[in-house]
Amino acid sequence: MEIIKYPSRNEWRKIIERPHLDTLALHEKVSNILNDIRENGDSRIRSYVEQFQGVRLSDLEVSEKEFTKAETLIDPKLKDAILTAKENIAKFHSSQAITPQKIETSPGVTCWQKAVGIERVGLYIPGGTAPLFSTVLMLAVPARIAGCREIIMCSPCDTNGNVHPAILFAARTAGIDRVFKLGGVQAIGAMAYGTESIPKVYKIFGPGNQYVTAAKQIVSLKDVAIDMPAGPSEVEVIADSSSSPEFVASDFLSQAEHGADSQSILLTTEESVIEKVKKEIEYQLERLPRKELTQKSLEHSRLILLKNWNDVIDLTNDYAPEHLIIQSSNYRELSEHIINAGSVFLGPYTPESAGDYASGTNHTLPTSGYARAYSGVNLDSFIRKITFQEITREGLQNLGNTIETMAANEMLDAHKNAVSVRLAKINQ
Amino acid sequence: MEIIKYPSRNEWRKIIERPHLDTLALHEKVSNILNDIRENGDSRIRSYVEQFQGVRLSDLEVSEKEFTKAETLIDPKLKDAILTAKENIAKFHSSQAITPQKIETSPGVTCWQKAVGIERVGLYIPGGTAPLFSTVLMLAVPARIAGCREIIMCSPCDTNGNVHPAILFAARTAGIDRVFKLGGVQAIGAMAYGTESIPKVYKIFGPGNQYVTAAKQIVSLKDVAIDMPAGPSEVEVIADSSSSPEFVASDFLSQAEHGADSQSILLTTEESVIEKVKKEIEYQLERLPRKELTQKSLEHSRLILLKNWNDVIDLTNDYAPEHLIIQSSNYRELSEHIINAGSVFLGPYTPESAGDYASGTNHTLPTSGYARAYSGVNLDSFIRKITFQEITREGLQNLGNTIETMAANEMLDAHKNAVSVRLAKINQ
Repeated sequence: MEIIKYPSRNEWRKIIERPHLDTLALHEKVSNILNDIRENGDSRIRSYVEQFQGVRLSDLEVSEKEFTKAETLIDPKLKDAILTAKENIAKFHSSQAITPQKIETSPGVTCWQKAVGIERVGLYIPGGTAPLFSTVLMLAVPARIAGCREIIMCSPCDTNGNVHPAILFAARTAGIDRVFKLGGVQAIGAMAYGTESIPKVYKIFGPGNQYVTAAKQIVSLKDVAIDMPAGPSEVEVIADSSSSPEFVASDFLSQAEHGADSQSILLTTEESVIEKVKKEIEYQLERLPRKELTQKSLEHSRLILLKNWNDVIDLTNDYAPEHLIIQSSNYRELSEHIINAGSVFLGPYTPESAGDYASGTNHTLPTSGYARAYSGVNLDSFIRKITFQEITREGLQNLGNTIETMAANEMLDAHKNAVSVRLAKINQ
Repeated sequence: MEIIKYPSRNEWRKIIERPHLDTLALHEKVSNILNDIRENGDSRIRSYVEQFQGVRLSDLEVSEKEFTKAETLIDPKLKDAILTAKENIAKFHSSQAITPQKIETSPGVTCWQKAVGIERVGLYIPGGTAPLFSTVLMLAVPARIAGCREIIMCSPCDTNGNVHPAILFAARTAGIDRVFKLGGVQAIGAMAYGTESIPKVYKIFGPGNQYVTAAKQIVSLKDVAIDMPAGPSEVEVIADSSSSPEFVASDFLSQAEHGADSQSILLTTEESVIEKVKKEIEYQLERLPRKELTQKSLEHSRLILLKNWNDVIDLTNDYAPEHLIIQSSNYRELSEHIINAGSVFLGPYTPESAGDYASGTNHTLPTSGYARAYSGVNLDSFIRKITFQEITREGLQNLGNTIETMAANEMLDAHKNAVSVRLAKINQ
């Protein structure tokens, strides 16, 4: 952990820098795999699964029997937790639906938007040591609410050809019909181009390693949309002497355990807070099972002392953290000034893990400063807003000359003529 | 014009294909220019302006004097038209603002979204024969409504160092403060990286040629967000024997005049419509100033006869047109079934040019089938939705075990611990 006291504004640039993920260097390698999938479909996918998962699959798709079996394998307590989380995520994302208004912009000219779910979406859930069933809920629940007609999911299987039962249970709970047993670049390629057994989708969601990120970037240049650019996870905590050092330290560590490249920073205006939090982090760290990995991530974490609350607000907005936890006593007031962040957690009893799992907000959020331009995944991510308009005869009589004048000045005479032929008919 | 009668569903794939824009082939060339701009800033930009616009600029930015002069150079009729269009665009885009709701997802757990304008946005307006002042309005008006703090614009100047007065008038009308005299890849690079005189932005909007499109793709991989992928413009018109062939032909031609690569298709279930529209297109074409260019685009336009309305709906949704004009008498009913389109124009008196200029809807729309996954530019394009949450002691007591169970099953013990330390304190 680095302690930085009263950095000048010139030094802020260094503080807000993120570890640079050079996915461009992987583009050639990843493109080759993608082209291979595009050209050879299922047969190549089976070879890749054999190579990476060590199992030869006759059927890439999870069967109904496997879904049923998965349910029997899960602890009832976990089942209940998944169901509770699902309910909360559904409540919050349902509240984001728009009620389209018809607007008469000028007499006889009516315009409106209609929100329509993206027809086919593909969710990617990485494999690895931990089964990310929470990410299944975060992506599939809003997709269902948005009205996406076909939601498919790809997730790698183990060496026995099984996908983790908690992932399958979460998928079924969220209403996903089809799950395919493959991971990595191959999964992104299969969903982007379609194969004999895996349908092509229009938008791909979900986290992944640098190869998956590179694959998403490449397919997004031409073939499908993607949720957002991805980078290592990060948290910023704001604290003062009223904050519990124990709580702050626990939030710091829960970010750090994500991986060696994840980042935690603490901002405070009180020097005593730094020492207390540092001590508490060291104490809690000793008791964590993932101690070594977490320690590595802590190496590039920073405890920063600033002069005043204005500096706290400005540095926060410059940094644009993925997660922002405000535990200082003035948290309500500070929150009014936050303009760049993914998701904000307010007060002492709102740990980031609440939003990671079960409070209802989404945990797929913009990292690496992308919060300056991107929202986290929300209901909008799964819909398009199509505009509609209807103009009456009188409406065109009113607005026709305006359109004609503008078209003529942009030297688009056929555009003008589309109005002129109609006005001529109206005035016959 | 190609006439296609009763194509089988197998032939649809061919019909919905778009001319492929291979921007990847330009990536190396464009990357070199971008790197040059990133490293050398203003001085390199001045050389590029000299090279492409043939003028050596001492100041890249449009001066207050130039804005004032521009206003005196514009026909009062055009001024009025721009002001009317601006009002309508403002009305429609203002209506898209969300009213954030606070949702109690479970007792003591409150979640909400807050819409915040992207702080710095950059608008690109291409040069060329026609001054695209309408695009200035379409991008700058919603940016202002969204509350973007800094809105800058780049547009190439002429050989005398002047930006077209209608562009400057539209910019000032829409509330843009700073306009820079440069175009092409250089403009995209300057806004993505920032230079001595041009500020870096977080999101870049606006149309452009294939080089500009490639540049936007490249900078979007790492440095800034962009509005959406771009391709040639296109329209689909649905007509029946109740439709005026004259109106349909005028809409067809107004699309065709955009450029040799733009596409128009007509869908109908009545054979007589095809002949009548074809004849009328040929008649109107003779009278258009941009006849040759328009004729070239018409070469890859298609008049398609289908068996029934179901086929019309399905092919439309498969094609996912940027613009969809429904002039058949059942236009209201058909419109209910449209799920893939950028902007839809309903009834006989609603030409596309209304939405291109002045009805209030946006004209920056997804082409090339991107309407399957993307919305056109709207108020959302200029904001982020940040999520907030606050949990009370009681809230965490209720939800804490759910979070702990899920975290433990994802093997994220520090995540679990962030809840456990709080529950321990509550239960002390």
